[in-house]
Amino acid sequence: MSGVGGRSIRPDAAAKVQGKQPYVGDIHPPGMLHAAILASDQAPARILRLDVAAARQVEGVLAVVTAADLGDKNRIGIIFDDQPLLVETEIRMVGERLALVVAETPAACQAGLEAVALETEPLPGVYDAEHALDADAPQVHPDGNLIRTFSVDRGDLSSALDTAEVVIEETYRIGGQEHAYLEPQGCLAVPAPTGGMWLYSSTQCPFYVRSAVAKVLDLPLAEVRVLQTPTGGGFGGKEDYPNEIAACAALLAQRTRRPVRLLLPRELDFQASTKRHSMTVHHKLYADSSGCILGVDAEVIVDAGAYVGMSTVVSERANTSLVGPYAVDNVRIRTQVVRTNNLFGGPFRGFGAPQVTVVHECQMDRLARQVGLPPLQVRRLNALTPDRPLWSTGETIAQTERLGAVLDALADSEVMTDSEVMTDSEVMTDSGVTADVHGPAASPAASLVEDDERYRQGTGISVFIYGANLHHGGQPLDRGGALVQVQADGSVSVAIGVTEMGQGALTAARAIAATALGADEERIRITEVDTDMVADSGPTVASRATLVGGRAICDAADQLQARLLPLAAELLDAPDPDALVVVEGGFESPDTKRRVAFEEVAALLHARRENPAAVGWYRSKPRDYDAETGQGQAYMFYSFGAHATRVRVDTWTGKLEVLSITAIHDVGRVIHATAIEGQVEGGAVQAMGWACMENLSLQEGKLMNPSFADYLIPTAVDAPTVNMVFLEDPEPLGPFGARGIGEPSFIPGAAAIANAVAAALGRPVTTIPLIPERILNMLGKE
Amino acid sequence: MSGVGGRSIRPDAAAKVQGKQPYVGDIHPPGMLHAAILASDQAPARILRLDVAAARQVEGVLAVVTAADLGDKNRIGIIFDDQPLLVETEIRMVGERLALVVAETPAACQAGLEAVALETEPLPGVYDAEHALDADAPQVHPDGNLIRTFSVDRGDLSSALDTAEVVIEETYRIGGQEHAYLEPQGCLAVPAPTGGMWLYSSTQCPFYVRSAVAKVLDLPLAEVRVLQTPTGGGFGGKEDYPNEIAACAALLAQRTRRPVRLLLPRELDFQASTKRHSMTVHHKLYADSSGCILGVDAEVIVDAGAYVGMSTVVSERANTSLVGPYAVDNVRIRTQVVRTNNLFGGPFRGFGAPQVTVVHECQMDRLARQVGLPPLQVRRLNALTPDRPLWSTGETIAQTERLGAVLDALADSEVMTDSEVMTDSEVMTDSGVTADVHGPAASPAASLVEDDERYRQGTGISVFIYGANLHHGGQPLDRGGALVQVQADGSVSVAIGVTEMGQGALTAARAIAATALGADEERIRITEVDTDMVADSGPTVASRATLVGGRAICDAADQLQARLLPLAAELLDAPDPDALVVVEGGFESPDTKRRVAFEEVAALLHARRENPAAVGWYRSKPRDYDAETGQGQAYMFYSFGAHATRVRVDTWTGKLEVLSITAIHDVGRVIHATAIEGQVEGGAVQAMGWACMENLSLQEGKLMNPSFADYLIPTAVDAPTVNMVFLEDPEPLGPFGARGIGEPSFIPGAAAIANAVAAALGRPVTTIPLIPERILNMLGKE
Repeated sequence: MSGVGGRSIRPDAAAKVQGKQPYVGDIHPPGMLHAAILASDQAPARILRLDVAAARQVEGVLAVVTAADLGDKNRIGIIFDDQPLLVETEIRMVGERLALVVAETPAACQAGLEAVALETEPLPGVYDAEHALDADAPQVHPDGNLIRTFSVDRGDLSSALDTAEVVIEETYRIGGQEHAYLEPQGCLAVPAPTGGMWLYSSTQCPFYVRSAVAKVLDLPLAEVRVLQTPTGGGFGGKEDYPNEIAACAALLAQRTRRPVRLLLPRELDFQASTKRHSMTVHHKLYADSSGCILGVDAEVIVDAGAYVGMSTVVSERANTSLVGPYAVDNVRIRTQVVRTNNLFGGPFRGFGAPQVTVVHECQMDRLARQVGLPPLQVRRLNALTPDRPLWSTGETIAQTERLGAVLDALADSEVMTDSEVMTDSEVMTDSGVTADVHGPAASPAASLVEDDERYRQGTGISVFIYGANLHHGGQPLDRGGALVQVQADGSVSVAIGVTEMGQGALTAARAIAATALGADEERIRITEVDTDMVADSGPTVASRATLVGGRAICDAADQLQARLLPLAAELLDAPDPDALVVVEGGFESPDTKRRVAFEEVAALLHARRENPAAVGWYRSKPRDYDAETGQGQAYMFYSFGAHATRVRVDTWTGKLEVLSITAIHDVGRVIHATAIEGQVEGGAVQAMGWACMENLSLQEGKLMNPSFADYLIPTAVDAPTVNMVFLEDPEPLGPFGARGIGEPSFIPGAAAIANAVAAALGRPVTTIPLIPERILNMLGKE
Repeated sequence: MSGVGGRSIRPDAAAKVQGKQPYVGDIHPPGMLHAAILASDQAPARILRLDVAAARQVEGVLAVVTAADLGDKNRIGIIFDDQPLLVETEIRMVGERLALVVAETPAACQAGLEAVALETEPLPGVYDAEHALDADAPQVHPDGNLIRTFSVDRGDLSSALDTAEVVIEETYRIGGQEHAYLEPQGCLAVPAPTGGMWLYSSTQCPFYVRSAVAKVLDLPLAEVRVLQTPTGGGFGGKEDYPNEIAACAALLAQRTRRPVRLLLPRELDFQASTKRHSMTVHHKLYADSSGCILGVDAEVIVDAGAYVGMSTVVSERANTSLVGPYAVDNVRIRTQVVRTNNLFGGPFRGFGAPQVTVVHECQMDRLARQVGLPPLQVRRLNALTPDRPLWSTGETIAQTERLGAVLDALADSEVMTDSEVMTDSEVMTDSGVTADVHGPAASPAASLVEDDERYRQGTGISVFIYGANLHHGGQPLDRGGALVQVQADGSVSVAIGVTEMGQGALTAARAIAATALGADEERIRITEVDTDMVADSGPTVASRATLVGGRAICDAADQLQARLLPLAAELLDAPDPDALVVVEGGFESPDTKRRVAFEEVAALLHARRENPAAVGWYRSKPRDYDAETGQGQAYMFYSFGAHATRVRVDTWTGKLEVLSITAIHDVGRVIHATAIEGQVEGGAVQAMGWACMENLSLQEGKLMNPSFADYLIPTAVDAPTVNMVFLEDPEPLGPFGARGIGEPSFIPGAAAIANAVAAALGRPVTTIPLIPERILNMLGKE
């Protein structure tokens, strides 16, 4: 089967697995210069002396640039104007840029870096976000350490407090995470001979890069062309941070009038680029003795690091997601985004939702235990349903029967055949939703009992709701384009404005184009984003690539079908062009069942000299939301999903092993079967890494394990079996009914593991990652 | 003034004059290989042995390819399938490709070429086109030497023959011409990592290159991307020939899986690439004693060289243009396109029209002399007029008053203040057409008398009609696209499908975009063609760049204005968006005269997330034409023009000097004043080179002067004063009323010089170029 739902070979697969795909580090045009960053190894500190005169004399060095050279072009903050491209006086984070060196060779660059004379004076720092707002805390910026507070205020929490029979209060400390993309940050800036600048950028967001470079170079947008290079992983880490790399390369290219490439060394990338935010959540859950939730009262501290970057956007998402997929009448949430001198917080798959999902799902398990219900049962009891559709944002969530279907699938999953959980079976219902079970056949049911004295096994579940599209605040960005050209031989050229970063965006877009046009999928050529080809399509974030690229392609296809269908009807001798059916590889007359190949219709389109190209466009409908109270339509639509996970804990060493994961996702429509399986497997394993082993070890803001030798991420041998269930209830707003899967695949992972560990050990989990030291600590072993 | 009619600085000017514009020879991606062609130095001949085994062993050589390696992928003919990419057995022209070598370095390439063992056997050749159809002529191909005959059959020539009082019969021999572009042919082929091929090509016709490469590589069109590199001159020489270069580079890149660049050495470029066709025209002009033409009977022999290439297309144009802008009732033309073993005939500015214009204009002067009328008077007597609009194609030519205006301007020109010509004044009329006189102020009238015994001066005129658009036969190609993107800051990105080759296509397109949108011309970014951005727009030939690019841009602008005008009206508080006037830099309310800047409207368009991009499209209306009889609507519309030229001949040395040229062109509308002046000056001087000095010296098909040292073209010191008159009667089918000027600027040049020389020497001119030997020969000196 070709097109939507098929398993065509990814267009980028062969080159990537064969190592033939050039990345930005492989491109070196004639005359290219190498750039490097002089980065601070301490923070905070004040620069007493930054003398680059000797560095400028180093042989092969063409320029050394400091803040003093940039004047008013030294601003890089994407939302707030609080961040310099190069430090002016005060260093606020380790890894911050002090100077840029550009030279003929990497060695000359290095010699230039070493020739810079730097003297600094240390300043008192803020390394504990929970105390960043204390009266005596040092101030990271003159305007204080509180960046912003987000709230959800709904109902009357005091009434919950009065009537609650059960109160579960806990402080959760959720760690950050390194994106650990295989390809570090990098950009090549090439001055266009006719003025302007071309950027070859490893990025999720070429249009962000364009705006940032246009700003620092003071060029019109049309004079800045960004060509996304094949991007070796992003996960949010290449959302805004590539702007900083591109701005540096562009400034140096402008000064030298030569191509300049800046590749971030892995250690500096670890230290300086954005990370998943660590968050502290103080959570009070009020319930009655039957397990019904009466209220949620939560305070969240988000550690933004020294600059805002996109921390407000991430925090607003965490704030909105904190209650989980439950109907709770009384809610009070305060999410404070604070500055510290720690790592630079930023976007990461799930955008704050994974952190708060750990919290609400651990609280749900504790509630279940306290009221004596199975974990699934307490979730059913509180879940959003068509009869009880009001979410904590005050909005009516559509199609909540999909959440019921997720819970049904959870009950059916092999992990849930466990006897304890099966007490839940009395409430199982058939939701009527089609469930496609992917992955290996279910293995025999495992027990929750201890294997022996040393090893303990446990099963945990987690459920989530997620707006897999831009939050209300991101609406100005929520549009996107596609350029579709039908060639005379029936092959098709497609350009989109959303990016491939390994997740399969091009594969999904190609499948959509094939099905929308009736064209041969193998003969559709689709490539990385070029800002000259497609209008600003916003960022590739929030699991929106398939939505935006797909809808824009469908719009272009509609325009083209208005030209193609009459020609197909002519070739088929069919009376009504609009009655023709677009089938795989062509068009079919519903009456005669005769078919004509897409190639033939394309040839006629060209013979008639009709316009074979169209610009497709997508934009979301405006919606209302009150950012003060967190009430309104936060997202365009929502996804649901759940994980059921089995773990084994080595009580002697503290080692945590994930044995199996059943991932249930309410995806609307599977666009490309292999790609979605890859997403779900990747998301689950990445979440497992975050939950079990990924530990950002900081000392006064400095990362002590900035390499893959010391910062452990899961490898193939760590990966458990991931069973997948895709529920296909079509999303009315998605292309062919699809909802994005990029972030949903990650969101429930850690929460299920935390609950499984709690079940295995019989102790509450309140922190992530569950590295061996922490497990041993939970067991009272030090 | 900005936009249409202005003189903005060309977007490509600074980089080109500063030498900063990289051409294809300046691009060398990592791992790039160098290619070279083993070319035959004799023809015709038969290959007895072509052994490349030793060449393949040369260090640094990666591959040596011969026809034996290509199988059925060895065909390159663009219209007829008569041409191999690499010679199979029979060599038919000098410079033909025998083998391709690809190596790590140019030196290794050269060593590889030298290591090929070649043995050939000479064959009898055809070097005289006039005898190519003789019964005993050797056959260049098995199917004979006659490629095709074109005809014009109109009226009854025997009646003309019966009533004619004057018969002027002459054989004209018109030489060929080298395009002499500054940048030789070249192409860089880069295998796309995901399959497919990217071509960086110096070409007028990227879509031709795409088709040719898709064919030899057996790839879908969408897998072949052609990026036109800034092209250092074309003049028709980079219409079809770049296909051959690109196909060679692409084949080698496909075999080596590495980038391969093939640059044609200048001498091989001279020898092997296409040339203006030499033609022999036997012409009989029948007239009455008053000077009215009764009939034309002509036979044209076009020397195509060994392969058809585009010779049929050029010949059909010559065939159609032969009668000139005159109303002649009885016409019989036979244009025979013949094969020889001479140079490869192909497209060149004017496409056969300059050759036949020399013929009809020399004949007109001889008629004038014979009936005792001034040259201009005899032209007025026979010119197409609104009362007498039927051309030799049998079609009614529209707006023939424009020809009257050209003749009026000719009468007014300084050259024509000469007393002999002024006898013409009694028929001068005011056509009412606006005439813009560009160029230096008129110099004092010169006389036609001899300066002294040694030098003689003379004045000549010529008049032409030209379809500055594709001939009927080219209609399937007559369409084109544009992609226009309005950016959020009001800058604009424009991509078109027609090419810049130095003539100013981008400058004109940018001016049109500025005026059509109301945008700031300086903030419009427009660049060379990329086949992934714009659909197949046909070739950039036939003076169609401004027409096609301009109309496609206007169509895109119309689509965008449908979105912009309502927003402008909103900002201006104007009731009717459609009543707003697009002005320089924005929009104006006709009632209040209030204006809003384009930037502001663009910002609102983006704020509303409306689609800021549009694909514009142009296609011509189908028309009827009978290729058998040459009757019907040959072209979409016609341009008129004239030259009046003064020359000085050194009767001792035979040196011919052009003193001044007055160029009168019926351009419809001046789109960019500086660009059109450049075109007219360049066309006039290039025609002067052809008429006076450019001599392709052949010995058995081998060019004896294949370099700029030996093949003389005009330099700046040879260039005469060119006075320009632009008549601006808007063309209904042109963008903002414009007609193309690329070829019209060339067409009348040589004819006026020929007539001026004839006037100076008092002897008929029957051949071109008028090199000193020929002048001396005319004077009876050998």
